Amino acid sequence: MSLIVTGSIGIDTVQAPTGNADEVLGGSAIYFAAAASFFCPVRLVAVVGEDCPDSFMETFKQFNVDLEGLEKRAGSKTFRWVGKYHENMNQRDTLEVQLNVLAEAAPPVPESYKDSKYVFLANTDPVNQMNLLKQFPTNELAVADTMDLWIETQKDELLALLKEVDGLVLNDSEAQLLTGKSNIVEAAEEIIDLGPRFVVIKKGEHGALLQHIDGRAALPAYPAKKVVDPTGAGDSFAGGMMGYITATDDHSFAGIKKAIAYGTMVASYNIEDFSLNRMSTLKREEIDHRLDVFRQMLQF
Amino acid sequence: MSLIVTGSIGIDTVQAPTGNADEVLGGSAIYFAAAASFFCPVRLVAVVGEDCPDSFMETFKQFNVDLEGLEKRAGSKTFRWVGKYHENMNQRDTLEVQLNVLAEAAPPVPESYKDSKYVFLANTDPVNQMNLLKQFPTNELAVADTMDLWIETQKDELLALLKEVDGLVLNDSEAQLLTGKSNIVEAAEEIIDLGPRFVVIKKGEHGALLQHIDGRAALPAYPAKKVVDPTGAGDSFAGGMMGYITATDDHSFAGIKKAIAYGTMVASYNIEDFSLNRMSTLKREEIDHRLDVFRQMLQF
Repeated sequence: MSLIVTGSIGIDTVQAPTGNADEVLGGSAIYFAAAASFFCPVRLVAVVGEDCPDSFMETFKQFNVDLEGLEKRAGSKTFRWVGKYHENMNQRDTLEVQLNVLAEAAPPVPESYKDSKYVFLANTDPVNQMNLLKQFPTNELAVADTMDLWIETQKDELLALLKEVDGLVLNDSEAQLLTGKSNIVEAAEEIIDLGPRFVVIKKGEHGALLQHIDGRAALPAYPAKKVVDPTGAGDSFAGGMMGYITATDDHSFAGIKKAIAYGTMVASYNIEDFSLNRMSTLKREEIDHRLDVFRQMLQF
Repeated sequence: MSLIVTGSIGIDTVQAPTGNADEVLGGSAIYFAAAASFFCPVRLVAVVGEDCPDSFMETFKQFNVDLEGLEKRAGSKTFRWVGKYHENMNQRDTLEVQLNVLAEAAPPVPESYKDSKYVFLANTDPVNQMNLLKQFPTNELAVADTMDLWIETQKDELLALLKEVDGLVLNDSEAQLLTGKSNIVEAAEEIIDLGPRFVVIKKGEHGALLQHIDGRAALPAYPAKKVVDPTGAGDSFAGGMMGYITATDDHSFAGIKKAIAYGTMVASYNIEDFSLNRMSTLKREEIDHRLDVFRQMLQF
């Protein structure tokens, strides 16, 4: 089975109580694709500028990711993000954003990708997500991410998208904003009424809630002592989840629940270092080992 | 096995988006004892004033709680609390507190209670908790609750208490305040270094973390759609947990983990109505049924 992800690649600068990382590889698509590649081959559609260092591509070639859909655009600059984490690593400020090439035309989808069965529309505006979705007419499962900005500025377009996708991934405050429900179980049920067959509400260090047409589940996060850089936690979570769904071709309630457990494990490793540093050395056996620990933790 | 709880009984007034409750039975010891009584007989040491309505005692007699240690003090007034929940039910303001009889001498512990094996010291100042603890010299397991006020004003006394108890129950912000660690796994480990064999960090709607000398576990809360009044959630959680530990006489890591799952279930019912209304009609079979649902939710 084939998994495709569309999203951003960025040059990130991160300041944290645990240290700093200057101009490192980042972006939602990068974290997602690296995480998913532990489970299945990943196709990537994304665009960078001509300033994107070759070393980034070398790093990325370590992962099982097809880069045919990665455009390096002459005359353009790569997306840049500067963020600072507080002493409490759950809070961060965005100090600077340069959209650069992300504000230009979307990268083309290679013809060879158009038969993709599993599609993840990483966070971007819902019109763009809808346009991308239409290029995978034979998809079996399409899942979108979104954020507060689009809920506030393009809600109608987002609601139209929700009628077309099978799943939605978003965080708890976004789910509350989208539905006006402060109870996230109620918010999750309301999102199902808007179209998707399932929604995964991410709660960061508090885990995730799955509402599926066939059931509901809540899983905690892995209780991580080593948190160096939370950047990409949500994207690597979604990547691990979609990678496992694709590998197993199982998007039943039970299948997605297990996929969420895998996503939780990959995210728990990702936050142990800056950028892709931890995922670059991570082995599938380590993921499976931690999953066993997690499973035992939840048995009583 | 015998479980004893010492703590407050109050006349509560609760304002919530879901409705209001005026002058209803409340207090940490009440919620704890009612919750624990689904699993084992409970001994209660607490004091009320002469204004405490007889109807409160009638309500309480429905539960398997020994009231020999409940003093009704002539000339004194019962503790009163007025609280208001925000639209987001996880936030509340305390509008009024009248300590009344709680500011007077502690109620005496009946001689017949002094052989209690399981002891829960509900939230009060640590000097008072230490004095109470000394009255159960043959206890097998003593667990204390605490709060930010004592961490800030009587930290030395609290640290002395932590060397004498087997377990501590507190919420995440309190654990962070006590240890200065923002990562709650680190905070939990540091609390173990302060003396207790285990600590349970409560995260409200996000579940609980158990750090035990023999292991660590995180469990989510039960994803509750019906939340009418969160008052007493933490106390009923602790009551269910201690009740199950007492009934099974098992305070191993695995035993406490299962006890936390039971505490989670009782708390999830308690918040479905004001005061003890839901626990008054709750059956043990309902608790066990929801535990089965919860267990399946956590299997993948």
